Amino acid sequence: MKKTLGELADLVGGEVVGDAQVAITGISGIEEASAGDLTFVANARYANLAQDTRASAIIASPDIKLSGKTPAIRSANPSLAFARIASIFHDTAPLYFQGIHPSAVIAPEAVIGRNVTVGPLTVIEGGARIGDDTVIFGQCYIARDTELGQGCVLYPQVTVRERVTIGNRVVIHNGTVIGSDGFGYVQVDGIHEKIPQIGIVDIHDDVEIGANVTIDRARFKSTVIGQGTKIDNLVQIAHNVHIGKNCIICSQVGISGSCILEDNVILAGQVGLAGHLTIGANSIVASGSGVPSSIPPNSTYWGFPAKPQQEARRVNASVQRLPHYVKVLNELKHKVAALEARLKE
Amino acid sequence: MKKTLGELADLVGGEVVGDAQVAITGISGIEEASAGDLTFVANARYANLAQDTRASAIIASPDIKLSGKTPAIRSANPSLAFARIASIFHDTAPLYFQGIHPSAVIAPEAVIGRNVTVGPLTVIEGGARIGDDTVIFGQCYIARDTELGQGCVLYPQVTVRERVTIGNRVVIHNGTVIGSDGFGYVQVDGIHEKIPQIGIVDIHDDVEIGANVTIDRARFKSTVIGQGTKIDNLVQIAHNVHIGKNCIICSQVGISGSCILEDNVILAGQVGLAGHLTIGANSIVASGSGVPSSIPPNSTYWGFPAKPQQEARRVNASVQRLPHYVKVLNELKHKVAALEARLKE
Amino acid sequence: MKKTLGELADLVGGEVVGDAQVAITGISGIEEASAGDLTFVANARYANLAQDTRASAIIASPDIKLSGKTPAIRSANPSLAFARIASIFHDTAPLYFQGIHPSAVIAPEAVIGRNVTVGPLTVIEGGARIGDDTVIFGQCYIARDTELGQGCVLYPQVTVRERVTIGNRVVIHNGTVIGSDGFGYVQVDGIHEKIPQIGIVDIHDDVEIGANVTIDRARFKSTVIGQGTKIDNLVQIAHNVHIGKNCIICSQVGISGSCILEDNVILAGQVGLAGHLTIGANSIVASGSGVPSSIPPNSTYWGFPAKPQQEARRVNASVQRLPHYVKVLNELKHKVAALEARLKE
Repeated sequence: MKKTLGELADLVGGEVVGDAQVAITGISGIEEASAGDLTFVANARYANLAQDTRASAIIASPDIKLSGKTPAIRSANPSLAFARIASIFHDTAPLYFQGIHPSAVIAPEAVIGRNVTVGPLTVIEGGARIGDDTVIFGQCYIARDTELGQGCVLYPQVTVRERVTIGNRVVIHNGTVIGSDGFGYVQVDGIHEKIPQIGIVDIHDDVEIGANVTIDRARFKSTVIGQGTKIDNLVQIAHNVHIGKNCIICSQVGISGSCILEDNVILAGQVGLAGHLTIGANSIVASGSGVPSSIPPNSTYWGFPAKPQQEARRVNASVQRLPHYVKVLNELKHKVAALEARLKE
Repeated sequence: MKKTLGELADLVGGEVVGDAQVAITGISGIEEASAGDLTFVANARYANLAQDTRASAIIASPDIKLSGKTPAIRSANPSLAFARIASIFHDTAPLYFQGIHPSAVIAPEAVIGRNVTVGPLTVIEGGARIGDDTVIFGQCYIARDTELGQGCVLYPQVTVRERVTIGNRVVIHNGTVIGSDGFGYVQVDGIHEKIPQIGIVDIHDDVEIGANVTIDRARFKSTVIGQGTKIDNLVQIAHNVHIGKNCIICSQVGISGSCILEDNVILAGQVGLAGHLTIGANSIVASGSGVPSSIPPNSTYWGFPAKPQQEARRVNASVQRLPHYVKVLNELKHKVAALEARLKE
Repeated sequence: MKKTLGELADLVGGEVVGDAQVAITGISGIEEASAGDLTFVANARYANLAQDTRASAIIASPDIKLSGKTPAIRSANPSLAFARIASIFHDTAPLYFQGIHPSAVIAPEAVIGRNVTVGPLTVIEGGARIGDDTVIFGQCYIARDTELGQGCVLYPQVTVRERVTIGNRVVIHNGTVIGSDGFGYVQVDGIHEKIPQIGIVDIHDDVEIGANVTIDRARFKSTVIGQGTKIDNLVQIAHNVHIGKNCIICSQVGISGSCILEDNVILAGQVGLAGHLTIGANSIVASGSGVPSSIPPNSTYWGFPAKPQQEARRVNASVQRLPHYVKVLNELKHKVAALEARLKE
């Protein structure tokens, strides 16, 4: 594919600086770009790289100084402009096969929408309903009485357990399990007797879920993933968790049972939440934190146990100097003893 | 299905308060219940919810005050009574298919018991022996010379590696791997040369294992999971680990090689154990802890590094006030200097 | 199989002490060994076990005192010698099936080398190229335009996403995902819009990767795993990470985007790295550490946040004694107040 820089600028609502007729045939990172490539600089820290790039053109924010050697698209949001152009030059749904593969095992009672792809060796059980334009790669398992919306993409080896509901344009990466049983037992004479987990998982529109994630079904009712929330690899979401809209859950986070995340929450990598907590809207928990109690909205927390980040940093700074303070304390002890001795004289 | 409250009370050995003839057609959580539902209150904290429930009946422990508006079953263990009733109203083994699916690839040398279900596209290799009444969902991989007991349930996409042995009534959720190689290398001239992992995994009766768990085979002999132990999602159990009876291993726990867990140990979420430790019977490690050394029986540990919980809490309380103590220390320093100056006068 | 002790000694370049004609028919750990077994002692701590073993022979390092009852092979590296002998007595590639299984779904455009095994129900898409002598167990998914080298072993249910490249002699355990999308979004009016992840994963020769690992493809270019690096179960490697040669990445480690690990780095279990860090060659990060900034070569770091281990230990020792220091501080406060009062008199 070949586009002129001017055509691409129109597409993203940017303004061309320099030759609008330069031909773009691909996209690349700023350091590895070569002739024909379009690249981008979103951060003034990398402005100097823009001087040396071998790209044929650059997307840059208005505040970045350019040498003028390389034509550019000025854009208020270069990352976004670049993302949109990238999806033109690259096939972002990396399909090898389209249609219903003959090796798929699809129950006659399943309801498959129009323009659906079902890859090789995928199983779809009875009662499942698959919306139009959804792509289910090979070796997925779609259990009975599930419902998938329109325009979803399920990569190979995703399993969706019985009765789970999934909205529109949901993307799920390889190896992820939606709807395994919640971890609930009641102890009877020293034996852990299972508490039936009879709820479901309900995933709303525009959610993306990474690889090898586990999301447990509710004890009753639903574990809920709100619209537009994005979940990274190897995350654990326990039964009855409710996640709001547009949250960001980074890799290896663990969310215990019945937690509530309000909208726009960010949990950084390896964060752990105790059960039954509420994380208020727009709050951020920094990576590695262990959260023992609820967090108010619009907060940034860090630490083990987590506390407001400024406080956590102040505490941590003191902790790092603690051996010094201990030395001061011991000196004081001797000085005070000496003073006491002198006053006794 | 429809049962009277009296029939259900008999089933769980409870006593009816109010109308024993009320018809129950389903079960539900206390807040979301509606007419026809049976619900439960196990904790006095939620007693007020019982006043407002729209359920047709409640299971409650004897110490919970009820309004009398709603008929009830009094039970010493409402959670357990409820769990048992739940399994009547809901199909807890969510089978779509029964019998041997024609698309399964089963080696002629495999030995399959009576009344076994093997779902679509499951592979069972030669030398595998599957006990009576076991359900293996679709897309599982049962490698050669494995042995599964009676009444097991393996959800889709479980893999059981060669020579692994699994007892009776074991439940394994989707994506879990039993018997991958232990992580063992010996360094030779800067190269990591693999140490063969020739042992097995031995899972005893009544174990339940969550989704996307990994349990490594022993270097020699066996990695052992004791009877009645329950393991949550995304847990790592390394080679040669021995876990006792009725342990609870919460999500994302990592247990390093050759650790021993005695009976009834509880490891909360994201706990990590160093190698070759013994965790004594009935001990609890609180969530997020990093355990560098063995723990005696009947202990509760917490922290990074983990220590007895009371001590850990005392240390943590001091740490949180450390900026204050530093201020006090600095004031003292000045006061002592002033005292010294005055005494020199 | 049966070998004399002398034959085995020749094989590993060791020296026989005692009867070189003793017949060895198997190998075992020192405590569980029985007649016919060869066992080993690599550590002087376990020398006393060597006195009591029922093994027919022992491999031991030169510094370990033996009773003379049991014949032995003296070897400078008993672990290595044992590993090599183990691979003779045990089948380390646990194959049930060889050749191309008829149930595999292989695109006609895929290029399959000589002496390749493809297990049942594996999918290989068009454009994939599989090197000679590679074994792909059943139920794997090899996406389009991937390249696998020679002599690789992929256990069941591995997925290799489109365009990923894998070198020679690479071993990947069950459930691992290579090439899922990196976790990258740009926020537009409160919505997280996906940044296309158009790079690949490039795995070099002699890498081994455990079970249920996730390695994301780069935004551009490559996520790289260097030659001879070994990765344990449930590890997360984000987009654009570059890992050097012969690194050891233990279970449940999380490596954030664009990190660089130089050669011979060791990350112990559950370590987390923030994004864009460099971990210098030969450095070690102890288990459970959270690493917020880069680490120089030849260092050992520990803690949350991680710092040089000696410093971290000193800080931790002070922290553990903090309640004591607080007591001392309070005593001093009273003593100083008393001194001040006396001087005011």
